[in-house]
Amino acid sequence: MEDWSFPPRYDESYRPAPDEPYWFPERETMDPDERDAQILERLKEVCAYAHDRSPFYRAKWGDFDPRTDLKSFADFEQLPVIHKEELRADQAANPPFGSYTCIDPQEVVRVHGTSGTTGRPTAFGIGAGDWRAIANAHARIMWGMGIRPADTVFIGSVFSLYMGSWATLSGTERLGAAAFPFGAGVAGQSQRAVNWMAQMRPAAFYGTPSYALRLAEIAQEEKLDPKDFGIRILFFSGEPGASIPSIRSKIEELYGGKVFDCGSMAEMSPWMNLGESSAQAGMLCWQDVVYTEVCDPETHRRLPFGAEGTPVYTHLERTSQPMIRLQSGDLTRWEKGPSPCGRTYPILPKGIYGRIDDMFTIRGENVYPAAIDEVLSALPDYGGEHRILISRQETMDKLAVRAEHRDGADVDAFAARAQEALRTTLGVSTAVVPVPPGTFERTELKARRVIDERALFHETVDA
Amino acid sequence: MEDWSFPPRYDESYRPAPDEPYWFPERETMDPDERDAQILERLKEVCAYAHDRSPFYRAKWGDFDPRTDLKSFADFEQLPVIHKEELRADQAANPPFGSYTCIDPQEVVRVHGTSGTTGRPTAFGIGAGDWRAIANAHARIMWGMGIRPADTVFIGSVFSLYMGSWATLSGTERLGAAAFPFGAGVAGQSQRAVNWMAQMRPAAFYGTPSYALRLAEIAQEEKLDPKDFGIRILFFSGEPGASIPSIRSKIEELYGGKVFDCGSMAEMSPWMNLGESSAQAGMLCWQDVVYTEVCDPETHRRLPFGAEGTPVYTHLERTSQPMIRLQSGDLTRWEKGPSPCGRTYPILPKGIYGRIDDMFTIRGENVYPAAIDEVLSALPDYGGEHRILISRQETMDKLAVRAEHRDGADVDAFAARAQEALRTTLGVSTAVVPVPPGTFERTELKARRVIDERALFHETVDA
Repeated sequence: MEDWSFPPRYDESYRPAPDEPYWFPERETMDPDERDAQILERLKEVCAYAHDRSPFYRAKWGDFDPRTDLKSFADFEQLPVIHKEELRADQAANPPFGSYTCIDPQEVVRVHGTSGTTGRPTAFGIGAGDWRAIANAHARIMWGMGIRPADTVFIGSVFSLYMGSWATLSGTERLGAAAFPFGAGVAGQSQRAVNWMAQMRPAAFYGTPSYALRLAEIAQEEKLDPKDFGIRILFFSGEPGASIPSIRSKIEELYGGKVFDCGSMAEMSPWMNLGESSAQAGMLCWQDVVYTEVCDPETHRRLPFGAEGTPVYTHLERTSQPMIRLQSGDLTRWEKGPSPCGRTYPILPKGIYGRIDDMFTIRGENVYPAAIDEVLSALPDYGGEHRILISRQETMDKLAVRAEHRDGADVDAFAARAQEALRTTLGVSTAVVPVPPGTFERTELKARRVIDERALFHETVDA
Repeated sequence: MEDWSFPPRYDESYRPAPDEPYWFPERETMDPDERDAQILERLKEVCAYAHDRSPFYRAKWGDFDPRTDLKSFADFEQLPVIHKEELRADQAANPPFGSYTCIDPQEVVRVHGTSGTTGRPTAFGIGAGDWRAIANAHARIMWGMGIRPADTVFIGSVFSLYMGSWATLSGTERLGAAAFPFGAGVAGQSQRAVNWMAQMRPAAFYGTPSYALRLAEIAQEEKLDPKDFGIRILFFSGEPGASIPSIRSKIEELYGGKVFDCGSMAEMSPWMNLGESSAQAGMLCWQDVVYTEVCDPETHRRLPFGAEGTPVYTHLERTSQPMIRLQSGDLTRWEKGPSPCGRTYPILPKGIYGRIDDMFTIRGENVYPAAIDEVLSALPDYGGEHRILISRQETMDKLAVRAEHRDGADVDAFAARAQEALRTTLGVSTAVVPVPPGTFERTELKARRVIDERALFHETVDA
């Protein structure tokens, strides 16, 4: 296996020839059992490393000593998963970076963090070696999408705490492509973004799917056609949209480029550890970068291929704040590889299509907001944005969707059609209220569309 | 001279010991005449390089061939200056990067650009070698301010087109300090910024002076004291504020740290070529990075030390889009070194204190908006923001300033005092209209405070 060591040591001058489909042919196409055997050895090293250096892991694991007790994947799966709240609490008790940090804080070269919208934010403290490893992994995975050194990568996502932007930038740099780190989120920036893309014709675009759709709308307002931007590759994270067929095909149609989904969690950077390849056959689990187990959400034991569950992640190439069995709360289904591209990694054919905690249950049915987005986006008269309202009348849950129609649409026909399509897909009758195009705010960050009034109801009752 | 070559080749593993005041002792403290002799040789190389590769420079220089005609600084000063509009026009005619670009566009690794608020934006196409040179220069100048590898640098400026943020980041990386590239400009980000600073206690802050003042206000709203952030060094560019004594001392008082001014133009990156050192004796012209001539604004000939003029800049370490005699339109006064820190560079004791084009003339007096800012900021009852209104009644120019007073101030006394102070300093009688604190929008970018109604008047008359 090429450059396979812990801590990772990468040859920074290495780059495949442009016509080579793989960055590391051996690591990417090897027999998966053989890879697993190597990964098990690496897990022993990583766990011993963390056990030696981190009071957090020693406390969490109790008597378990990886040097003697970790002999198989079955042993590994007995390790408790980490919940994000544990990281937050540990960091508050052990500032600035938490007792799960395995390097001296003086060795940190990059600080990022969570948005902290739900409490104290968590800081990521990243050492120089880890930053290089992140850049190398992202370059490799972006190479797998088809990005090459002659390309310009337009990064249309906010540069602040959000790791997606920064690690895409580092991957672009390592790959040797031209980075155009444009950002997002500042007033007036979207208008400038489409004009710059028209002027510079980048080969690749990175952002969120909803922002790409928004930019296409703005391009139209600016009398520009996104197809003229010359974008060949659009890669996305932060939202499930890129793996939702109707959204994907809409973006591909608007821009005339191919769409790729990628991404797991900021804590897991290199978060492109889930990343689609040129085959566009679903996100691959790049297991030699981050070891992913799709697990039963209750027991956190690994599920067989073909099953639906929640990803649990373990770093194999990070030394500063290594995550060992971080539970994501996401939902996915995984399949055994290989992918048509030849890579032998497990595949998430439908990407990440929900979360344990934003899934809602209505009249006994589990409903994913992403499914509603998918149904609406498939309708030709859909105006591009919607809001989901869950309420309760007496003891009866009600699901309503306020959906924008397109200009000039037959509004009643659109509502009836949306209502029927949602009922069919969700198994729940849904009231669709059509509203004019442009009613709802577009977001450059993750779209938040669900208003669950029952929560308020519960709080009132409980208080 | 350490690492002195063209194109520059830097040893990326080099770093001085933390107690060493200079990054490159020889380059920084050498006899200035000896340095000038070296710079003249470098100018010959840079000009020959540009002449060989750039139709723009060949057209601009006509018969002048640097290989035979450039023998002295006097020869160099005969070269015509570049105006920004020429770059814009050349780039429009020769997309994407203009015929002043001396590398193959395929070699570009970073794309940034101007904001384009006044027309087609200009793209910066930067090659890998130049990006390294920028990082090395900025690391060296930040070292001169006192930033060390153990420090965390909080970058509180927008990451988009604005070069200041990116090049500070690259300098921080090269210096080996921890970069916390937080950004600015997104809704709600200022509240998060002060909370993160309280949590992470960065040793250094980079941004604009007006944003630092704004963050101090927000800290107060969040019940935080900026002194508790533990910031030792605040360095600024983008506005003249950091060199205005009253603004500097206010920031130093609020944060309990030292303020440093730096910066020339984005086109000139490494734009910290003007940068203050630990001596805080004014910005130094780091002549071996970018050769600065303070020139007569009409003739563009270099002025003697002691004179006021406009800086004209020439790259000595850039190969992708080398600027040779780019005229800034800024105003400054320069003095011969050495600085008390021991560096033998020329000094701008009052920084950049105006622009040729934002200076306005009223009743025969030249007035700099920065001077008004300075006068108001020195008044204890000043509320922190103001707007300047220039109008004409009959044939008489009128200058009015709407100035915020502080909560609880004696409003009439404040207005009278401000009026008197402005009249004394500007030599023009000024109507001061006091307004309540918080009246004017705070900006995270450059503050734009002047409304010149006479321009409208002229347009109406001329049309």
